[in-house]
Amino acid sequence: MGRVTVKRRVMKLRETAVAHRIDVLAAEEPLEIRLNGRPLTITMRTPGDDFDLAAGFLVSEGVVTSAEQIAAIRYCAGATQDGSNTYNVLDVRLAAGTSPPLTSLERNFYTTSSCGVCGKASLDAVRTVAAWRVDDDPAPVTAEVVAALPDRLRSAQRVFDRTGGLHAAGLFTPDGRALCVREDVGRHNAVDKLVGWALRDGRLPLSSTVLMVSGRASFELVQKAVMAGVPVLAAVSAPSSLAVELAAETGLTLIGFVRGSSMNVYTGERRITPSPAAP
Amino acid sequence: MGRVTVKRRVMKLRETAVAHRIDVLAAEEPLEIRLNGRPLTITMRTPGDDFDLAAGFLVSEGVVTSAEQIAAIRYCAGATQDGSNTYNVLDVRLAAGTSPPLTSLERNFYTTSSCGVCGKASLDAVRTVAAWRVDDDPAPVTAEVVAALPDRLRSAQRVFDRTGGLHAAGLFTPDGRALCVREDVGRHNAVDKLVGWALRDGRLPLSSTVLMVSGRASFELVQKAVMAGVPVLAAVSAPSSLAVELAAETGLTLIGFVRGSSMNVYTGERRITPSPAAP
Repeated sequence: MGRVTVKRRVMKLRETAVAHRIDVLAAEEPLEIRLNGRPLTITMRTPGDDFDLAAGFLVSEGVVTSAEQIAAIRYCAGATQDGSNTYNVLDVRLAAGTSPPLTSLERNFYTTSSCGVCGKASLDAVRTVAAWRVDDDPAPVTAEVVAALPDRLRSAQRVFDRTGGLHAAGLFTPDGRALCVREDVGRHNAVDKLVGWALRDGRLPLSSTVLMVSGRASFELVQKAVMAGVPVLAAVSAPSSLAVELAAETGLTLIGFVRGSSMNVYTGERRITPSPAAP
Repeated sequence: MGRVTVKRRVMKLRETAVAHRIDVLAAEEPLEIRLNGRPLTITMRTPGDDFDLAAGFLVSEGVVTSAEQIAAIRYCAGATQDGSNTYNVLDVRLAAGTSPPLTSLERNFYTTSSCGVCGKASLDAVRTVAAWRVDDDPAPVTAEVVAALPDRLRSAQRVFDRTGGLHAAGLFTPDGRALCVREDVGRHNAVDKLVGWALRDGRLPLSSTVLMVSGRASFELVQKAVMAGVPVLAAVSAPSSLAVELAAETGLTLIGFVRGSSMNVYTGERRITPSPAAP
């Protein structure tokens, strides 16, 4: 593989200075995920951890909940360019007894048959499809631990410092120990890679864990956390309205704007212990 | 509509202080785009400028290149929840003689029939489908103008300052005058809203313009610029490898890390005039 970064000549301008340098870019390539031989989706991703990405995507979409439901994952040998494998097409074979989704995956979480597509229907769909409940997972976490996660995520990132172009997602214990960190040009992919790692390692549901993401918290990121059984999601930036609504409906703790010692807790306050005042 | 922002109670932690406040969030709702009555795609977006979003999406995907190719856009009256229109389902009717895409849109730009999905095939597809060439558009721009665009984009953003949760895209003249600025929870949507505005205003191709985006430059953002005929794309953050490759192949000028007086010019240097040294 070895395609996580790509080197490229660049003209750097600063004030009146002009210089040519070699810059390191985050690699981006399309990945087609097939399910039982049929094309399911295409995502633009940073190559690497592709099997985890595919497995995590299937967890997020409600297709599988345990490693045993996946019989095999392999790169498609026939997917070649100039006779060589592109490593950009994967096929996931489900185990006997595990069904591929009946409808288009895209519609799974955004609509129901009874009404037009809307936020409310999207919330209901996640609640219906999720295999686990996160609302009864106590998962107490202190504000100090949460405040330390952005730095821990950054220090665990391998590629960001060189390219500045990758989103990161990290899975942590309630006392702040990193379990797994993944990077990708797509923030959803970084989380899918984490969740797929957990699935294939037999760790689902991810009870008593904190998921920290480098960007914003969207509806889809909260969906992925809930589908994997993660009780606490923290983001460096802002959440969207529908992310907060889904977190409130499912009992997930959603934290945004984690910067320095400050943060906003949007839902599930009960899990967060504020920092004690000095004696 | 009035759903660009949503208010929500939040627990704010800072050092040892705990306070409850009302926070303003960026609104996120699903939008289903139908084409001639058939479901085409669903995107999570910030409500507002939905007709532009749908039109711009169709430009990005190579379905239309002029306003005359769209006969009508309307919210689907039947798409209701509790009897009221959700304003989350749109139908676009193409004019007679304009064909809907034959294949799944998702596959249009990522693969060809002759080889597996890969970056090279994605580049070829954009080059084949694009209605205009940007490589012969001179569009000279000075580094000073580019350096000033992030602040102009920020000052034109209406919602960001309140929510911190929106991506922005702005279309500028080569001397830095703003033609149109759009915001969205999804960065691709912000650009589609701009391009759709331009299509419906009879401005395509967008020759001699600079597109400034608030985040990173991905393959898909370069694709959208090329499909709209924009010759210069500038981003506050990093580009991906495939974004740079597509820009190089199509002759687009791609600039990243526009911060203060510095920037990186990845492709199309010929259009950029560095700042002159002081006399």
